[in-house]
Parts: sequence; structure tokens; C-alpha cells
Amino acid sequence: MVMDNFNLMKAVSRHSPSKIVLVVLDGLGGLPDPATGKTELETARTPNLDRLAAYGICGLIDIVGPGITPGSAPGHLALFGYDPVGCIIGRGILEAVGIDFDLKPGDIAARGNFCTTDKDGLVTDRRAGRISNEQCAELCRLLDGQVIDNVKLLVCPVREHRFAVVFRGDSLSPDASDSDPQQTGVAPKEVTALNSQADNMAATANKFIAMAKDILAEHHPANMVLLRGFSQAPQLPTMGEVYKLKPAAIASYPMYRGLAKLVGMDVLKTGASIEEELATLKASYANHDFFFLHIKGTDSAGEDGNFQRKVLTIEQADRALPQIQGLEPDVIVITGDHSTPALLKGHSWHPVPVLLYSKWCRSDPVRQFSESACISGGLGHIPAKQIMPLAMANALKLTKFGA
Amino acid sequence: MVMDNFNLMKAVSRHSPSKIVLVVLDGLGGLPDPATGKTELETARTPNLDRLAAYGICGLIDIVGPGITPGSAPGHLALFGYDPVGCIIGRGILEAVGIDFDLKPGDIAARGNFCTTDKDGLVTDRRAGRISNEQCAELCRLLDGQVIDNVKLLVCPVREHRFAVVFRGDSLSPDASDSDPQQTGVAPKEVTALNSQADNMAATANKFIAMAKDILAEHHPANMVLLRGFSQAPQLPTMGEVYKLKPAAIASYPMYRGLAKLVGMDVLKTGASIEEELATLKASYANHDFFFLHIKGTDSAGEDGNFQRKVLTIEQADRALPQIQGLEPDVIVITGDHSTPALLKGHSWHPVPVLLYSKWCRSDPVRQFSESACISGGLGHIPAKQIMPLAMANALKLTKFGA
Repeated sequence: MVMDNFNLMKAVSRHSPSKIVLVVLDGLGGLPDPATGKTELETARTPNLDRLAAYGICGLIDIVGPGITPGSAPGHLALFGYDPVGCIIGRGILEAVGIDFDLKPGDIAARGNFCTTDKDGLVTDRRAGRISNEQCAELCRLLDGQVIDNVKLLVCPVREHRFAVVFRGDSLSPDASDSDPQQTGVAPKEVTALNSQADNMAATANKFIAMAKDILAEHHPANMVLLRGFSQAPQLPTMGEVYKLKPAAIASYPMYRGLAKLVGMDVLKTGASIEEELATLKASYANHDFFFLHIKGTDSAGEDGNFQRKVLTIEQADRALPQIQGLEPDVIVITGDHSTPALLKGHSWHPVPVLLYSKWCRSDPVRQFSESACISGGLGHIPAKQIMPLAMANALKLTKFGA
Repeated sequence: MVMDNFNLMKAVSRHSPSKIVLVVLDGLGGLPDPATGKTELETARTPNLDRLAAYGICGLIDIVGPGITPGSAPGHLALFGYDPVGCIIGRGILEAVGIDFDLKPGDIAARGNFCTTDKDGLVTDRRAGRISNEQCAELCRLLDGQVIDNVKLLVCPVREHRFAVVFRGDSLSPDASDSDPQQTGVAPKEVTALNSQADNMAATANKFIAMAKDILAEHHPANMVLLRGFSQAPQLPTMGEVYKLKPAAIASYPMYRGLAKLVGMDVLKTGASIEEELATLKASYANHDFFFLHIKGTDSAGEDGNFQRKVLTIEQADRALPQIQGLEPDVIVITGDHSTPALLKGHSWHPVPVLLYSKWCRSDPVRQFSESACISGGLGHIPAKQIMPLAMANALKLTKFGA
């Protein structure tokens, strides 16, 4: 089941002019710097977030479940109200949707890396020295449009060494293994069928890889490709169907734009900075009733182990908050799709602080938006997928359940 | 389903050299002494537990669910990460496994008591005056190895008045009622088939009981037997399969050893005192990556209604803690399998305090390991079966879920 209580939400949701802004500070949750005992969020000077926390209601969310470290896809799906375990989205589909690729029913997508192999065919750099976007686009043009065994290959650049490849043909199955060995010093793996339905898929993928090897031979460092995440688009009910919302996504990174599209959001054209995203929000504010505003910098800083840059990004978001409040949305939710503690240099399982503000939120004693303070928040410690029903309720967009 | 998210845990678990020690103070949770307003745990002087609580993260766990008083089997299964409602383990199987009985597929086991009946056949003592282990073994030898209607009877001593009987034959069903009336002054009950498949089983059990009555006639006070908990071994996925752990159990009581064996732990030879259990932990520390260390005294004291002895047992465990910390495990979890308040003289439904310490636990403001303080803990109030995923995460033994 892709959504717990899908029918319940569908039954009680109603259209109304009220507006919800969901601000996702990617990887918001952190761990304390041993020197100060304070997390990134606790270190940041956040007068605006703290004031909103005082007026609003806070809590902690588990994205997938206690102990489980979420990827970005389950992280966002949970925030949009979908069951993150029930709807798995393949890596290939995410890449394709994230570049506005127009997927047809039956298409199989894979994530591709241009990579470097040595004379023995062993991978020496899984990212081909992170070639430029331009080089990537040029190499994709060389591979794009080939037909192998009646399967059309559509190869599209993503950014740097990354591309998406879509296999379009009859009765292809996504149940094929990765060719990406996820390490250097070894040869790319053969793509194998995970069941007999995927024999064609695996054979075609291996022929494509062989062909790419020939075509790229003289294009060192990008002289080979690695494929992973063969997948098909899931059929998710849209947020329009479930919540009767007209939702919009303001996100600059392909993956988040792709995720938003999969749940039926209008993905708005926007610049990448927080200021540019705010401008997009203002410009489109009249046209939608739900806005997903994605701030990537917190996660990137956490992934890089850069505690201070994560602090600064949070402070930047804090300074942007009054502009969002100035639009007077009925509900503001501020949270993250997972924790990315700078100390761990990656996603983690730690619960994520959440702040919900509305006129009707029943405020709690929390006066600071932080991991520690949110432990005592009025929302308690809840699954992330419950945030959307709470936001909808606070926007007075849900009718009574039962007589 | 024996385990929620079994496939999820299996998919994200990975082997690593990090080590987890789970200390179960059986029946840990309590109720306040009306004179002091403090529970057993709050009365005990526990400087080491309190210090670890300050560095760690605390919370409360519900074993089966709010209001439900767990037996020892669901209590421990939940702590090992299994769904305590989805996998019921019969009493007979627990007894058999707890004495290292080598169960074969199809075997039906029952828990037996030697008991005393009067000249009218009414039970006067359900435990036959708690005969010695030696007497128990001798009487079991008299009953063991009989064959009734092609069913072989295997009768093994447990301790004092307790024994296990295993029925080995073709197509036996465990759906048979107890002969133990659970009270004195009445006759043992007839074993009845709970459905038509169990007719053979009930008939054989009644013939065995009749035979035992004859054989034991001159062995007052152990002149009769009572059987209960006819059951078959459940097929549980092992902790090795689910978590890729190499787990070991350090427990002296048969039931806990049996439970540990059912989930695939290596059950280590150990003495019964906390000091002997610690010695076992130290001696085997290099050979395993997960240790379940069981301390029985807290529960026994609670069952006896002995508040002060429960306090002393907790203090004894507190003094042992530095020795566990000295081994520098990556994760230490300290909790109970249920509450056993001395005031109630038995298991209860009250949630159990839990303390988790790791380098990555994101500490909370709790500075005392107690029922009251744990209410405000950073783990919140969670189902016990979520402790294992949290312990695994804190040991960095889980990979990311989803792209």
C-alpha cells in the first residue's frame, strides 16, 4: 500500500482557499559538537525560527522508523504523507523524472555514471573525474537514440558525470542487477536478470554497455559507463487526488523536482539560492494552495562534514522566514527529510525536529527550535507521514470523520 | 507476521565489527512505595546507571502494547526485535528448548509439574512441595521413554517440580487443552482436543497422565503430574538472518536460554550470579558482536513482593555496569522485559525504562535512570520491538534505506 489511510484522507480532504507552506531543510537534524554539546541547529542563531516555535507546536519525526536511515526519496515521500516503505522509487526513475524526462508507460530507467577504466577494464574512478555538464551532454548525444533488439535507448545528461538512460520497448522488466560495482579496482559487473522475465532487459543493458564502451574508448577519463537502479515509475495517487490540493514544488535539485512530480506537484522554474526560491514562492503564491520549498544546503554541508556551513545555512533560512510569514500562509511547517549530522558526514537515523505554525495549532511550551527542545513538543514523537494530515487539519482543509 | 519490517531490517542490516550489549533486568519497571513515592529503581542508589543515562538517551518502552501485561516470552521477543503478538511461543516449547532438548520437526512439547493429590484425587500442592532437582530427575527417569499408540514420550527434568514432556509421533497437533487446573482443591482436568486434528494428541496425553499416576502412586508428595502449554516450535527467522549478527545469550534460567536459542543466539555456559555472568561476558567478548545479558533477580524479588530485595538487585547491577563499560561496547542498552512492581507481586503492564548509550545516540536532558525521568527521554515512548533497530543504528550496522 502506497499510503496508509489513503481512503480516509481522500474522504475527509476538501478544497479550501487556505495555504500551506512546507519548508524542508534537507538533512536538518544533527548531532552535538563534542566541544559545545550543541547540534548545528542549536548552534545557529535562529531568532525567527525560535519565535515561530514559541507561537507554534513542535515535535520530532521519524521518517521511516526508529533506527532507519532514510534516503532522500523515502524522506520526502513521508513528508508528503506517503508510506515510505510501501512505495519504493527506483534510482533510475528518480534521475529520469528529475530532468523532466517524459516517461511513457513501460519505460525502464537506470541511473548512469560516466566512469574511468584502466587498460585492464578495472574501474579507477566511478565519476570520471566529475566531467563538466557540457562534456556529459556531448557524450550523451553520442549514446542517445540507438536501437538494440527493438529497444530504443534514450540517454540524457543529468549533471557532471551523471546521466539517465531509458529503455523503451515491449515487455521489459526492471528486475535487473546493477553494473556499478560501487567500488574502484574491480571491473564493472555484468547486468543479470533477477528473474526470468528480466532476461531481455539484462541482455539489452549488457549490449548497451558494450556499445558505450566502444563509442567512449577515446574519451578518457569518461571511457566507460556504470548503470544502477533499473526501475519503472510507480503509480502513486497524486496529492491532488488525495488532498484536493493544487501543490507546487520549489526545488532546484533534479531529484527533489522529480519526487515532487511523481506525487503530482507542479514543479516551478526556480533559481537555486534561498533568495531565488523565495522569489519563486512570491511570484507563484496566488496560483497554488500548497508549496513544498526545498533547501538543499543543510544536507550538502552535513554530507561534507562541514558543521559551520550547516550552521550558516540554517541561519540563512532563518533570515528568510519573515518573508514567508509575510505572505501570511495559514500553515507553515518547517522540518527536514532526515538528519545529516556533520559529525557522521551522511544521512542518519536520528529523528528530525518539526515545527508547525497555524492560528489553530494549540501551542506548546517549546520556545526554541532545536532537537533537545522538540523532545518536549506538543506534537510528540511521530512518524513523518503524519505531518501532512496535521498540516491539512491546521489549514482547516479536513472535514469531520464519521457521524 | 513474526516481525514487522522483517524484510526492511534484513535489507539494511550489515555485518560490522561493532558490538552491542543488551542488559535485561527482568521485570525492571516498578511502582512507588506509598511511603516514599519512589519506585524500586528510584529508591536504588544507582550512580553508574545515572551517569550512563546522562551520556545516553532514555525513554519508555511498551512491550506488547499499552495496558498489556507481557509474559517473559513476548517480553524478550519484543526486545530482540520480533513482533510479540505475531509470534506466540508455547510454554511447552519454552521448557524443552530451555533444557537444551533437541526438538525434531513435528514434536509437541508440554510443560509438566509434579504435584500432590489427596486420596480423592484433588490437587493439594501444584508443586509437590518443590521436590529437589535430584528427585525430579529420578521421577522423570521412571516416566521417560514410554510408547503410547505409536507416540514416543520423552520426559526430561527441568528443576524442582518442573519437567518437560515431548510427544514424538506422526501428525500430532498441539491444539490440546491443559490438564493443570491452576488451583488446588480440584482434580486435574482432562486434556481435550481444541479441534478434531488434536484428537490423537489429547487421547495420548490422557493415557500418559493415567500411566504417570500409576507409576507415581507411591512417590508422595510427587504422586501426580499436571501438563500445560502443549505446543510446537515456531519457525522464527534467526537474529543472524535478520541482523547479520553473531549473537550470544548470557542467561542462567532455562526459559531465557530457550528463548535466545529460538532466535538463533549462541547460548553460553554461565553461572547464575551477576558476577559469573560478567565473567562469561568477558570471556566470550571477542567471539560475538551482540550480547543478551539477563539478570533474573529483579523479577524474582518483584514477584515475591520484596521491594527492598529488588532495590538491592538493581544496586548490584549498577555496581556491575562499569565492568561492562570497561569492555567498551559500541552500544549498551539497559532495560527490562516488562515491569514487575513489588506492590503487585507479579508482571504488570507499566512501560519499562530504557537507556541506550552510544557515541552517536544524541543525548537528551535525562540525568537519572528512573521511570519518572524517562518520561522526558529523547527516545520517547516507543514499542519495545524498536529497540533492536535503534541499537543496530547506533552501532552503525544499518545502511541507508532507499535512494
